[in-house]
Amino acid sequence: MKLASLKNGRDGRLIVVSRDLSRFADASAVAPTLQAALDDWDSALPRLTEIADGLESGRLANQPFDPAKCASPLPRAYQWLDGSAYVNHVALVRQARGAEVPETFWTDPLMYQGISDVIIGPRDPILLADEAYGIDLEAEVVVVLGDVPMGATREQAVKAIKLIMLVNDVSLRNLIPAELAKTFGFLQSKPSSAFSPVAVTPDELGKAWDGAKVDLPLLSFINGQPLGKPVASVDMTFDFPTLIMHATKTRALSAGTILGAGTVSNRDANGGPGKTIADGGLGYSCLAEQRTVETILHGKPSTPFLKFGDRVRIEMNDKDGKSIFGAIDHEVVRYTPPK
Amino acid sequence: MKLASLKNGRDGRLIVVSRDLSRFADASAVAPTLQAALDDWDSALPRLTEIADGLESGRLANQPFDPAKCASPLPRAYQWLDGSAYVNHVALVRQARGAEVPETFWTDPLMYQGISDVIIGPRDPILLADEAYGIDLEAEVVVVLGDVPMGATREQAVKAIKLIMLVNDVSLRNLIPAELAKTFGFLQSKPSSAFSPVAVTPDELGKAWDGAKVDLPLLSFINGQPLGKPVASVDMTFDFPTLIMHATKTRALSAGTILGAGTVSNRDANGGPGKTIADGGLGYSCLAEQRTVETILHGKPSTPFLKFGDRVRIEMNDKDGKSIFGAIDHEVVRYTPPK
Repeated sequence: MKLASLKNGRDGRLIVVSRDLSRFADASAVAPTLQAALDDWDSALPRLTEIADGLESGRLANQPFDPAKCASPLPRAYQWLDGSAYVNHVALVRQARGAEVPETFWTDPLMYQGISDVIIGPRDPILLADEAYGIDLEAEVVVVLGDVPMGATREQAVKAIKLIMLVNDVSLRNLIPAELAKTFGFLQSKPSSAFSPVAVTPDELGKAWDGAKVDLPLLSFINGQPLGKPVASVDMTFDFPTLIMHATKTRALSAGTILGAGTVSNRDANGGPGKTIADGGLGYSCLAEQRTVETILHGKPSTPFLKFGDRVRIEMNDKDGKSIFGAIDHEVVRYTPPK
Repeated sequence: MKLASLKNGRDGRLIVVSRDLSRFADASAVAPTLQAALDDWDSALPRLTEIADGLESGRLANQPFDPAKCASPLPRAYQWLDGSAYVNHVALVRQARGAEVPETFWTDPLMYQGISDVIIGPRDPILLADEAYGIDLEAEVVVVLGDVPMGATREQAVKAIKLIMLVNDVSLRNLIPAELAKTFGFLQSKPSSAFSPVAVTPDELGKAWDGAKVDLPLLSFINGQPLGKPVASVDMTFDFPTLIMHATKTRALSAGTILGAGTVSNRDANGGPGKTIADGGLGYSCLAEQRTVETILHGKPSTPFLKFGDRVRIEMNDKDGKSIFGAIDHEVVRYTPPK
């Protein structure tokens, strides 16, 4: 089943989207919003599935689906936790500045709490006041959870995964070093994120979902040019249940929590840093990684960060080349504060 | 006006509480929940004020107010940002371990994003699996915001402050060093917090609120013994509007955001580390600070962290000694995961 939220007030209006992303049916009779559906998932799921079946068979009234009319599936969420599961990415960044990767990084996940009170829509502009922030994308796979108890077991963690989405975890590279030096995590350096137009139940991924990882390439583009196509299941040091268990060590997670696995990053086939797509590699899910590889190879980065007017597109296709989640596709635009 | 949320579902039921905290009137006809009221504050405020006036004059049907029946005013919130505005506290901790305080700490606020998807009630137990985490309270003053635009001016920040509350920002001291070493902020080391039973509009503080700081002592007790009574307006390096402006540098904040100023901490009258209340000082708002002062004076801490069965009480009285927010009053209890 595929779910989305039409722009409507602060929380959107819940719709069921057809598998091919061409049509939708209203679902607000089951739950007005996706958060409301997640709050009572066991009751909502069969009724939403009924709508999805009616939509696929053409029995139900439906309308053309337009991602531009969508808010984020959860336009605001009570929690957004982002892990850094692709330790390859972290190792590269450290290699570029000549730092060691502590041994614990391979056993103890990095995870931060991000902004979830203001989430931009999948086609909304990335509004920022200054290019000098070092504006970057981060293409990631995320899951949406039901309630998870404190100290969750792996089985509870697997069961808690209700939906899967993509995210552009917008990052401001030039603000990050000073914030991380303060050790309190990202505050100004991780502004509002954008999630895919559609959130899907794990069964929509078929064999590409094993309960813990998504075995498909994650596609990123800048201004229409391919940036990355690494496979989300490869080099994923910590799978989703492991990240969920990490997050619940000292607390419960409530329904609607979004949990990400961090920038997807694959090693090159020869074990070294990934190559660009132009050079026959799988590319990168963020410009910072490309710049890091450039630094390792040539002593300094040559790829700039994003500028006003640049477009970012993030998408994932199934084995038949059909988009699963719809595309995050948006432009970086200069922000001017209201008076 | 004083607002609270009776325990009811995930978001509580909104009530208006009398100034003396003895009675309440239902407010769910105005807004079912406090979040709903904050989502449309300009419309809700006059109608809630009408209920408050009716309650004070005895015209309205009312019932006895019992904080034990309360959820947190916001039982779940879309954002909980906590600054560290009392740099004295940070300086002491650093002094105890022989580290310098970077000059920027006096000009660039420390702030992290905390858990807000699961907030415990003001009388609910602090459930944790292990005393060895180093369980500690942090008594703080927090504000609840309306919508704030990205790049907010000081005037916009002042206007955004809709409500004031207290918090026990429960902290797990023995988990903090390893998490801060990872630089991604607090994740496992800051579990669910508890806020005061009642959230009040700033006018309830009278002259003790100047639009930026609360000029009253914050009272903390462990097992009935006074721990601290520092004045929240004193040694507050960053006031609330400054913290709000810091948080909005690269993003908007949405209505219902909770923003804290960190553990309240006052220097001693002689300019040195604060003394205990027993020694004629103002004491501390967390055990970590007491242990830090013990370390500075005697080479090592003598006060233990909280144990199962210990009770924490946090409250603030007005000039006449009457409780403004009601008391956070709860016990540390061993958590056993569900099967």
